[in-house]
Order: sequence, then C-alpha cells, then structure tokens
Amino acid sequence: MKNIKSYVQENKQRFLDELIELLKIPSISADSAYKEHTINTADVVAKSLKDAGCDVVEICETEGYPIIYAHKIIDKDLPTVLVYGHYDVQPPDPLNLWTSPPFEPVIKTTDLHPEGAIFARGACDDKGQMYMHVKAMEFMTKNNTLPCNVKFMIEGEEEVGSVNLGKFVKQNQDKLSNDVILISDTGMIAQDTPSITTGLRGLSYVEVEVTGPNRDLHSGLYGGAVANPINVLTKMIASLHDDNNHITIPGFYDNVEELSLDERAQMAKAPFSLDKYKAALDIDAVYGEEGYTTNERNSIRPTLDVNGIWGGYTGEGAKTVIASQAFAKISMRLVPNQDWENITDLFKNHFESIAPKGVKVKVTPHHGGQGYVTPIDSVGYQAASKAYQETFGKTPIPQRSGGSIPIVALFEQELKSKTILMGFGLDSDAIHSPNEHFGVWNYLKGIETIPYFYKYFTEMYK
Amino acid sequence: MKNIKSYVQENKQRFLDELIELLKIPSISADSAYKEHTINTADVVAKSLKDAGCDVVEICETEGYPIIYAHKIIDKDLPTVLVYGHYDVQPPDPLNLWTSPPFEPVIKTTDLHPEGAIFARGACDDKGQMYMHVKAMEFMTKNNTLPCNVKFMIEGEEEVGSVNLGKFVKQNQDKLSNDVILISDTGMIAQDTPSITTGLRGLSYVEVEVTGPNRDLHSGLYGGAVANPINVLTKMIASLHDDNNHITIPGFYDNVEELSLDERAQMAKAPFSLDKYKAALDIDAVYGEEGYTTNERNSIRPTLDVNGIWGGYTGEGAKTVIASQAFAKISMRLVPNQDWENITDLFKNHFESIAPKGVKVKVTPHHGGQGYVTPIDSVGYQAASKAYQETFGKTPIPQRSGGSIPIVALFEQELKSKTILMGFGLDSDAIHSPNEHFGVWNYLKGIETIPYFYKYFTEMYK
Repeated sequence: MKNIKSYVQENKQRFLDELIELLKIPSISADSAYKEHTINTADVVAKSLKDAGCDVVEICETEGYPIIYAHKIIDKDLPTVLVYGHYDVQPPDPLNLWTSPPFEPVIKTTDLHPEGAIFARGACDDKGQMYMHVKAMEFMTKNNTLPCNVKFMIEGEEEVGSVNLGKFVKQNQDKLSNDVILISDTGMIAQDTPSITTGLRGLSYVEVEVTGPNRDLHSGLYGGAVANPINVLTKMIASLHDDNNHITIPGFYDNVEELSLDERAQMAKAPFSLDKYKAALDIDAVYGEEGYTTNERNSIRPTLDVNGIWGGYTGEGAKTVIASQAFAKISMRLVPNQDWENITDLFKNHFESIAPKGVKVKVTPHHGGQGYVTPIDSVGYQAASKAYQETFGKTPIPQRSGGSIPIVALFEQELKSKTILMGFGLDSDAIHSPNEHFGVWNYLKGIETIPYFYKYFTEMYK
Repeated sequence: MKNIKSYVQENKQRFLDELIELLKIPSISADSAYKEHTINTADVVAKSLKDAGCDVVEICETEGYPIIYAHKIIDKDLPTVLVYGHYDVQPPDPLNLWTSPPFEPVIKTTDLHPEGAIFARGACDDKGQMYMHVKAMEFMTKNNTLPCNVKFMIEGEEEVGSVNLGKFVKQNQDKLSNDVILISDTGMIAQDTPSITTGLRGLSYVEVEVTGPNRDLHSGLYGGAVANPINVLTKMIASLHDDNNHITIPGFYDNVEELSLDERAQMAKAPFSLDKYKAALDIDAVYGEEGYTTNERNSIRPTLDVNGIWGGYTGEGAKTVIASQAFAKISMRLVPNQDWENITDLFKNHFESIAPKGVKVKVTPHHGGQGYVTPIDSVGYQAASKAYQETFGKTPIPQRSGGSIPIVALFEQELKSKTILMGFGLDSDAIHSPNEHFGVWNYLKGIETIPYFYKYFTEMYK
C-alpha cells in the first residue's frame, strides 16, 4: 500500500476543506433548537459515504436522529469490518471561553500541533475522527485496495446516550453482522506514543431537583426558618463523597473490578508526567480517591461528578431570595462489572433517602451505558497494532480510557464481535470543552493508518 | 382629622391609578440594563412630591442612582419628620412563575385581599408603601392639616445596599436634620393585627468563586482525577452549617445579642400558626437552628443562606463536563451587635481557609448593613401606636423583623434620631418573589393612618 501516503498528501487540502464544511453544521443533539442542523448533518455524511464508494447508503429514521447505514460487500467469504462513529456534537458553551466561534472552523498552530489544528466543536469528537474512515474508504475504493467487506453505522445521538441506536442494533443484527467493529472516538497517549484503548468506563447520568417552599421567598423574612433548597442540595451532594473521596452510595462498589497489583504496575509504565499534567490544567494539586494514582483514578476507578448546578438568582448584583427549587446534573463513570441501570437505581434510592424534612427530592435518570474491556490478543487488536507500527514505527501501548462510549458493550452483546478503538486524538484536544481542536497531522495520520488495519485484519483473519 | 377617611375614599381611584403608573416602570437597580428606567422613576417620584405640596424638590445625583430630597418647612420651632423610602425594586425573575407580567400591574382579589391587591414588582416593596407617604402629604397640604415640618429622602439603591445614600447622609447632616425618621418598608402581622417593627436584621452579602482546571474538562477523561469546582463548592458550602444548623464560621456568634427567656416569652405571644405557615409554603416541616422557634429563627437569630448557585452545563439534556469554575451568592442575616464588616471578614477568611488543594477560591463582598433595634418608649413609637389605634382600633404589637434595611442603623448614627417602622404589608405579599402584591385595603389604610402619626408626634413632642 505504498501509495496511501502520497494519496493523502495529494488530497490533503480537499480532505481538510470537506471536514471543515462538515464542522460548520451545529449538530448539537442535546439541544432541540438545533434539530434541523443535526438532520442536515446526517445528509451530508450520507453523501460523503456514497462518494467514498459505498454501494448502499441508507438514512435510517429513528424516534430521534437518523442513523446512516452504508456498505460495500465485495465478497461474502471475506471478513467484514463494521465502522461506527457519530455526527452529533456536545453543546459548545461556555461560548465566551472560545477563542474562535465553535462552528466557524479555523486552523491554528499550537505547541503540540506545529502543523496546525482544526479548532471547532466536533473537530476531534467525533466528526474529525469519523471522517478519517470515510476518506480511508475513499482511498481503498479509488485504488482498488479494499481487501474485505465494510459496513458503516454513523449515528447522531452518541452525546445523549445512543438510545435509538441501541434499538436499531437489536432490530438489525443480520444487516450489521460483522467480524470486527472499528471505532475512532478515543485518544492516544501522545503524538509520538500511539496507543489502543482497551477499556472504557460506563456511565450513569441523572438530574436531581430539590423543591422547598412553593415560591421564592424573601431571605430576610424566611431565612433560617425554612429549608433552603440550595443549601440542602449542597449538603446532599457533599455527602456523596467521604473524606477519602470514596463514594458513599451503599452498594456502589459492590461489583467494581479490582485490578491486580501486577496489572496496575503494567499501567504505571505508560509515560506520564504529573508536573506536566498539573501545569497543563494550571492546578497546584491533583485530587481524588485515596490510594490510587491519577491515571488509575481516571480509568479503572468509578467516579461521581456534578456536571452542572443551578438555582436562585444568578444574574448581576445581589438578590436576597430563597429559591423554591435547586437543580443539578450528576454523572457517574463506571468500571467493568458495574451495571449502569443498577447504579442508577442505587443513586436514586440513596439520594431520595438522604433528603431532609422540609424538601421534596426528584431524581430523573438521563441515560447511561456499560463499561467495556477488550482483550489484547484478539485478531483485531493485533491487526491494529501492526497498522500503527507501519505508520508510527512504534508498537502502540494498550490503555484504559476514562471516557465512555456506552454503545460498545451493547455491540458485543448483540453483534457478538469485539470492538477495536483506534483513537488519533490527544487529551489536550479539549473535547467537550471550549476550543476543541484536532491536529491536522493526527487527522491525516489516521487516514493513512486505517487502510493498514483492513489489510492486516483481512490477512490475519484467514 | 375627620375628613381623611372621606378624602381617601373620594380619591381612591386616582391613588390607585397613580401608583399603577409608577409600578409600570422597571426600576431594577441590580441590573444595569434597566438604568434608564430607574432614572426615569426618580423623575416621576420627584414630580409626585412637588404635586403633593413640597416647597423644595431636588434630584440629587450620586455615583449611582439619584436620591430625591424634598421638604416643606412650615415653622422652624415645630418638629421635623424625615420620611425615607426607595423607588428601586428587586429583579423579577423567575419570570415564568408570575401569573401576570411583573411590570404590567393588575388588581386581583385573593383570600387575604377580598378588596383586591395590586400585583406588580415593587407593589409593596417599596413603591406602594413609599407612595402612601406622598399621598398622605398631599392630604395634609391640601387640607391645611400638616402639623409640622416634613422632609422626604427617597433613594434608588436600597435593593443593592444603599452605598451612595450612606455617603449622601454623611455629607448632608444639616439638610437632613430631623426629630424622627418615618419609614414604611416592612410588614404587619395580619390585617387585623397591626404591628410596629422594632428590630431589623443586619446583612452581609458575598459572592464566591471556585476555580479548578483552567478550562472545562471531559468528565470521563478527567473525572475522579482533578478537583471538580462544583463538587468542591458544595462541600465548602455544606460545611458552613453543623448538624444542628449552627453556622460554623469561627467567631460568627461572638457578638450575637442573646434575648432573655422573658423577652422570648413576650415574642411568643404574637399570633402564629405553624400549621398555617407550613400550609402556605406547602412544606411538610420547618427547618433551622436547633433550640429556637420559627419566629425566633427568622428574627432574633443570624442566618446564612445561598441565594444563588451556578456552574457547568445547565441547559437541556446532558453534557459530560467538569466545569472550570463554580459560583454562589451567599447572604448572612445578622442580629444587633454583629458588625457586618467584621462578619464579612470572618466569612472571607474562613471560606478561603477551607478551600482544598487543587482549586482557587475568591470571595467578593457585595454589600451589607448593620442590624437595628428601636425602643418602644420613644415619642415616635408612642405616636405611631396611637395612630394605629385611631385607624385600626387596636394597639399595635411590637415585632422584630427578619428583614434588613441596612441604612437605618446609619441614620441613627449620623442623624442622631430614631427610626419608626410603620409597615402596612403582609408576609404573604411575596416581596422579592414572583407575584409580589400589595392589598388595596392596606395601601389606603396606610394613607389614612400616616397623618395621625404626624398629628400625635407633633402633640406629644411639645
């Protein structure tokens, strides 16, 4: 496959222009105000798959946003790769922290990306990484180097829990049948340190509501005499962690997979500088569960974080009011063997049980998903490893990610195949944050590496 | 003064129309977006004082909103009453809880107000109660029954701390010299139970800011490994009260005036139904400092309430983010002998001291004021008491209010005169809340009662 490198170079500008057009569409699945844009994005992605050489491209309607299914079957006896990705993005706020508008992509250079990086919401998560696969497909079809069958399944609800994708997969097992699932929606350790993600955390995301008096009250006339929903909410949330930052929800840790000291020692070998980590975030100290390192805390341990909180007067100046209600969005990252629905129930029961008299508490589950761990001795993993060696000249390091792709566990359950997570982003790409970006080098490197995965997977599969 | 009753009846509709026009202007001092409206309100009030018979009316510019000064001096040997009020109002949000727009006044009947109540922001606090004095002045000048000299000082920054009024008072002691200060900016126990407020709580209002990482982070990649500013803020706020709901700030209670059991027994005689209180707020239990009754908790005891909190994603749906910052607005109601500036310092030092590693904490004082207690044996109190007996046929009950009028303590200090707090509103008038209203009966009763205060104060003063 000598010519992949040159093909990428020759088409570099077009590859960038096409991605930039895709990034201009604000496909924010969490906010219904962007419904039309999100649907338009599906059309654009579908067309790009047709152009890339897929024989069949379908826009499959769901109760939510459409799922794009596409395939090119060249020989029933050859293995089939199913590529998954998503075209929806996270909300961009807080907008004031973006140095350029989130949906007006621009290429800027950074210390880590001297060749430039595309700044836009979705640049890395996941439009940019998803589009690498479209362009890799284009290369293989245009150059007759596609060695196997390929199927694409690109959804628009990953950032809101993939509820409809779950149903779609259960209802279309034959259509989606495959020998390996390939996803680029994770990161790698560093530009010079390729890695393959072998574990993902599960997720349980809930919203809580504390209601006190039936109306906002004057804090002078009522202050001190009625339960203040905001004060109560802070007390309830604070009680969810003990002094060692262990989570206090009864039963929360019951099924947590405890890694052996040997496995933890293996993990510790990954290059990591705590000083650089703190400097990059401008924090004077890390924080977390006693007895675990930073890399363990954000990968093999479950967590509970408040993602948003609001109540009372939040405008300019002062208002002496006791709010009638206070709210918070809370998510728990889970590790293998923790069932997200069970954890959601444990949270709900516990949170409702600790409500003091004088307030009413409501817990509303948003969405969730199971964690996932993939073995490193599978054909898929080995093929991916060889692909990275080909283009990076290094053997990738297996690593557990703290992130979640809730649908992956369901894929294995329903489609009976392993998922390979080939990520080309960096932690510093600021996904889910203001100024999300994706290195031009990473984008092109991904397009260059993916065809090798197809090659080696097909060879090794025989 | 036989004809005050008939004068009020004859002019009832005009009195209501004039107040409604005043209430239409959104004079929200906390929000600079309403600057022009707030300044216009000052002009309208100034004109009404001129029309009411004041000889001198001045709009005194300040660094903030103007202060209206007006007077009518009929005889230097007669006593002088200084009337204070404010034309600014609290922000109206949350707007969705209003049954009619806050600045489109309408008269609706309620169980407590069968004759109707004016629904609008500022109806009771304080435009309606301030305007009672303008109309009482009109009556006395038009009917040649003004028995003494009168001065008016109406400000536009009471809801944001009266900073410029404080300077104005210090700089104009001769101009403002008086024998008693009269204010209607409080409430009474019930329609059939007139009361005079003899105590006000002080106030310290601060804003806190907790900063963790220098940008919003993906809660999967970083969750559990860095301090989450929202989780930290909830822990810090929760720690400000112990299990008995005592405030934990060192030194907070050092100067708190402890009432004798006898004084508390006197207070307990005021008519109060805990069941009705809970029913009116739709709460199953009251809440507060151990060892004190509801009426003690909201009047003679200091408190700490969060008035607003915000951070992270608060929009529709879910966003898995760790916010870079979290914020809260916190106010403390203080009792006599607690110095608000000292308490503000104690809060600041304590709050900064409990910040865990990994975050930076900033405390910004908004404003504050001292508490106040007035004796019930003063000429002013006795005159007010007789005025209520005249129009309500009952002796008013002295009561401590949980509210704050920060400037009152400064009046006594700078002008060396006592303040009499004749309030005609009800706790149920929802001041500072959606659907603030003021009973038509209360409004007219106030106009009817005030001239008697002038009469008896002048007689008793001799």
